[in-house]
Amino acid sequence: MSLTVYRKSHFNAAHRLYRNDWDDKKNKAVFGKCNNPNYHGHNYEFEVGVTGDINPETGFLIDIEKLKTIIKEEVEDYLDHKNLNLDIPEFKELNPTMENIVVLIWNKLRKRLNSNYGLSIKLFETPRNFVIYNG
Amino acid sequence: MSLTVYRKSHFNAAHRLYRNDWDDKKNKAVFGKCNNPNYHGHNYEFEVGVTGDINPETGFLIDIEKLKTIIKEEVEDYLDHKNLNLDIPEFKELNPTMENIVVLIWNKLRKRLNSNYGLSIKLFETPRNFVIYNG
Amino acid sequence: MSLTVYRKSHFNAAHRLYRNDWDDKKNKAVFGKCNNPNYHGHNYEFEVGVTGDINPETGFLIDIEKLKTIIKEEVEDYLDHKNLNLDIPEFKELNPTMENIVVLIWNKLRKRLNSNYGLSIKLFETPRNFVIYNG
Amino acid sequence: MSLTVYRKSHFNAAHRLYRNDWDDKKNKAVFGKCNNPNYHGHNYEFEVGVTGDINPETGFLIDIEKLKTIIKEEVEDYLDHKNLNLDIPEFKELNPTMENIVVLIWNKLRKRLNSNYGLSIKLFETPRNFVIYNG
Amino acid sequence: MSLTVYRKSHFNAAHRLYRNDWDDKKNKAVFGKCNNPNYHGHNYEFEVGVTGDINPETGFLIDIEKLKTIIKEEVEDYLDHKNLNLDIPEFKELNPTMENIVVLIWNKLRKRLNSNYGLSIKLFETPRNFVIYNG
Amino acid sequence: MSLTVYRKSHFNAAHRLYRNDWDDKKNKAVFGKCNNPNYHGHNYEFEVGVTGDINPETGFLIDIEKLKTIIKEEVEDYLDHKNLNLDIPEFKELNPTMENIVVLIWNKLRKRLNSNYGLSIKLFETPRNFVIYNG
Repeated sequence: MSLTVYRKSHFNAAHRLYRNDWDDKKNKAVFGKCNNPNYHGHNYEFEVGVTGDINPETGFLIDIEKLKTIIKEEVEDYLDHKNLNLDIPEFKELNPTMENIVVLIWNKLRKRLNSNYGLSIKLFETPRNFVIYNG
Repeated sequence: MSLTVYRKSHFNAAHRLYRNDWDDKKNKAVFGKCNNPNYHGHNYEFEVGVTGDINPETGFLIDIEKLKTIIKEEVEDYLDHKNLNLDIPEFKELNPTMENIVVLIWNKLRKRLNSNYGLSIKLFETPRNFVIYNG
Repeated sequence: MSLTVYRKSHFNAAHRLYRNDWDDKKNKAVFGKCNNPNYHGHNYEFEVGVTGDINPETGFLIDIEKLKTIIKEEVEDYLDHKNLNLDIPEFKELNPTMENIVVLIWNKLRKRLNSNYGLSIKLFETPRNFVIYNG
Repeated sequence: MSLTVYRKSHFNAAHRLYRNDWDDKKNKAVFGKCNNPNYHGHNYEFEVGVTGDINPETGFLIDIEKLKTIIKEEVEDYLDHKNLNLDIPEFKELNPTMENIVVLIWNKLRKRLNSNYGLSIKLFETPRNFVIYNG
Repeated sequence: MSLTVYRKSHFNAAHRLYRNDWDDKKNKAVFGKCNNPNYHGHNYEFEVGVTGDINPETGFLIDIEKLKTIIKEEVEDYLDHKNLNLDIPEFKELNPTMENIVVLIWNKLRKRLNSNYGLSIKLFETPRNFVIYNG
Repeated sequence: MSLTVYRKSHFNAAHRLYRNDWDDKKNKAVFGKCNNPNYHGHNYEFEVGVTGDINPETGFLIDIEKLKTIIKEEVEDYLDHKNLNLDIPEFKELNPTMENIVVLIWNKLRKRLNSNYGLSIKLFETPRNFVIYNG
C-alpha cells in the first residue's frame, strides 16, 4: 500500500554552470549556453511528495498547511529571486545543475519531516527539462 | 517490465472538513478554511493508471473505451456535481479529504477490473494539491 | 497602441443554480446537474488584465505587488472557500453563474483601480468552460 | 537512492488500428473510430526519463544536449510527420497503438544509452490518454 | 461592454498539404514535412467564443449544454478521427491548413447560432501553433 | 474579418530591476525581491501573433517555418541564456521589466514582417504574470 500527497510550488533564480579549474574553452564545450559568464535564469517549479498513512482522526496524511510553511521556509525563502552561484553557500563550489538543486531541496526538507514519511521531489528547470529525486 | 495505461477524467463537487465530536474552535484550528459550514468546492481532476501486459491480438493493454465506461459509471456518475458530505454515503462519517476520496475511487474501480491488472489513481484537488494511491 | 499586464489567481467555492420562483421540474430542466440542492463546486482560476501605459521611471504599467494585494483583498478574501449562494450577499437573489461572477469581480476591482486603466477579467469555471468580461 | 532526469519532446503522426485477418465488422467493433480506413492522427508528446547517478565533475546525470540529439535521431526524425502504418516498418504488421509505440521508442533509445542508465518513457496520444513503459 | 463565454473541445485528424497543379519538388519546397504523401496528424484543440448579453432570468449568456451539443454535431462528429483531405468534402480542393480549418469551423457554427451573438474560434494545431478567427 | 496565426516560443534569461539614480533603500522599496543585486531569472515563454489574410494558393496566412526562423534570429538568438541587464544593449539604461521586454520583442519582429501584417506579442515572465502588446 502506498499513498503520497503532493504540493506544488516555485522559485525564480539565476545561475550559470562552470568549473574554476577548467579553461573557458572546456567550460564552453561542456556547459554550452549555460556557461554564459553573466548568468541566465529559470522559473523553477517543483512538487514535494510525502508518502505515509492517513491519520484516521483528520483524514490527512499530512497537514498541507504545515507542509506549505515548511516548503516556504526551507525552499522559497532560501532560493527565490536569488543567484544560485553567488547567494547560496551550497553552490559556491558545486554546479547548480537541476540534479544538484533537487538534492539540496530534498536534504533541506528531509530534516523537517518526521522520519516515518517518505519524500520525493520533482523539479522543473524548464517545462521541457526536469528531474525526480527520491533520496 | 512494467507498462501502464492512463486515462484522465474529472468531476466537480462541494465538500467541507469537520468532525462532529469536535467543537467549532478545534474544527477551525485543524481544518482552517476547509471547515466553512456552508461548504466550498473543487474541480477534481484524476488519472486512472492500469498496469498489465499488451494483448498481442489488439495491441491494447486494456480497451480504453471500456475503461472510460467503467470510470463514468463508478466515479463520474457517482461524484460529479455532488456534495461529498451530504450526497455520498461513504462520507457521512468520514472526512472527504483528497486522501479519503482517492481511496474511495481506487476501491470502486478495483472491483470492476480483472485482478491481473495493477491499479493506481492520481487525484488533483487543485492544480497545486494532489495525491497518488496505489492500493 | 495597447499594452496589458495580466495577473493570474484563483479561488475555490461551492455553488448551485436555481430560481426560487420556478418549481423543481423547471429548475432541473434549465440548470441540469448545476441544480443539485446540496451544491457542487469548482476551482475558479482567473486572470486580471490591466491596460495602460508604461511608467518610464519604473518600467511598470502597474506595480504588480500592489495589484496582487488588491486582488487578494477584493476577490480571494471575499470568494475563496465560500458557498457563493449562501455566503456572498450579491448572490442571495442572483444566480452565481460564471457570467455573473465575472461581472462581480470586474466591478469590485474597477473601484480599486485608477480610472485611466482599462480592465478585463477572464474567469475559468472549469478548464473547459470560461468567460471574459471587459466592462 | 534514485535520481531520474527527464526530457520532453513530441512528434505528429497519422495512424489507424485494424487487422487484415479480421473483416470490417469485427475491426469496427474492436477498434471503433480508430479504425477509419483513411487514417486520423495525433500530436504525440513524450517524456524520456533516464535514471542514474550524478557525475561529480559536471553535476549532470547525463548531458541533456546529447540526450536531445539521441531523441531527435531515434524518435523525432523517425516518427515525425509520418503515417505510422505505411511509413514505419515496425508497424507494417503490428497495430500502432500507444502501447506498441511506447515500446518501439523505448527499444530504440535503449540501444543508444549506456547500460548503466535506467530508462522509462511516458507517451501521450492525447492529453487524456497516455502510457508509461519502464522496459 | 463585452462578455464572451468560451467552450473548449477537440478532435483528432490526419491531413497533408499539397497542390495537384504543382510538381513534387514545388510541393516539397512550399509545404515541407506537411507534404508527406501518406499523411500525418494532430490533436486539434479548439475554443468556441460566443459574445452577447446575460439573460437576466438564468444568468446565462448562452446555455452551455446547448452550445456543447451544437459543437458536437457541427465539429466533433464531422471532423473527429477523419482524414481531412479524403473524408471532408470542403477540403477536396482546398488545403486543410489550420487557417482554412478554423474558417470552416466558424462557418459551420455561425449557421447554428442566433445572429445576435458574436463568434470567435481559436484552433490549436499543436500546442505551439494556433490561429484565431473572428469572422 | 480578422484572422491571426500564433507561434509559441521561449527563452531563459537573468535580470534585475533597479535605477542607478536611486539609493538602495528606494530601489528595494520599489522593486522588492526583483532588486536582488546578483540577479534572478525566468523562463520567458512568448506567443507571436500575426494578423492578415489567407494566401489562397497555399492556405497559409504566413509561412510558419519562415516565421520560426525570424523568431529564432530576432528573439531566441538575441535573448536566450543571457543576462538582460548586462548582455542586451537596449537594457543598459532601461529596466528589463516584462513591459519593456515585450516592446523590444515587438519592435524587433515588426521590422522583419511585411507592413500588411498586424503584430501582437504575449510574454509570460512567470506562469502567473504576463503581458500583451499590440504596438
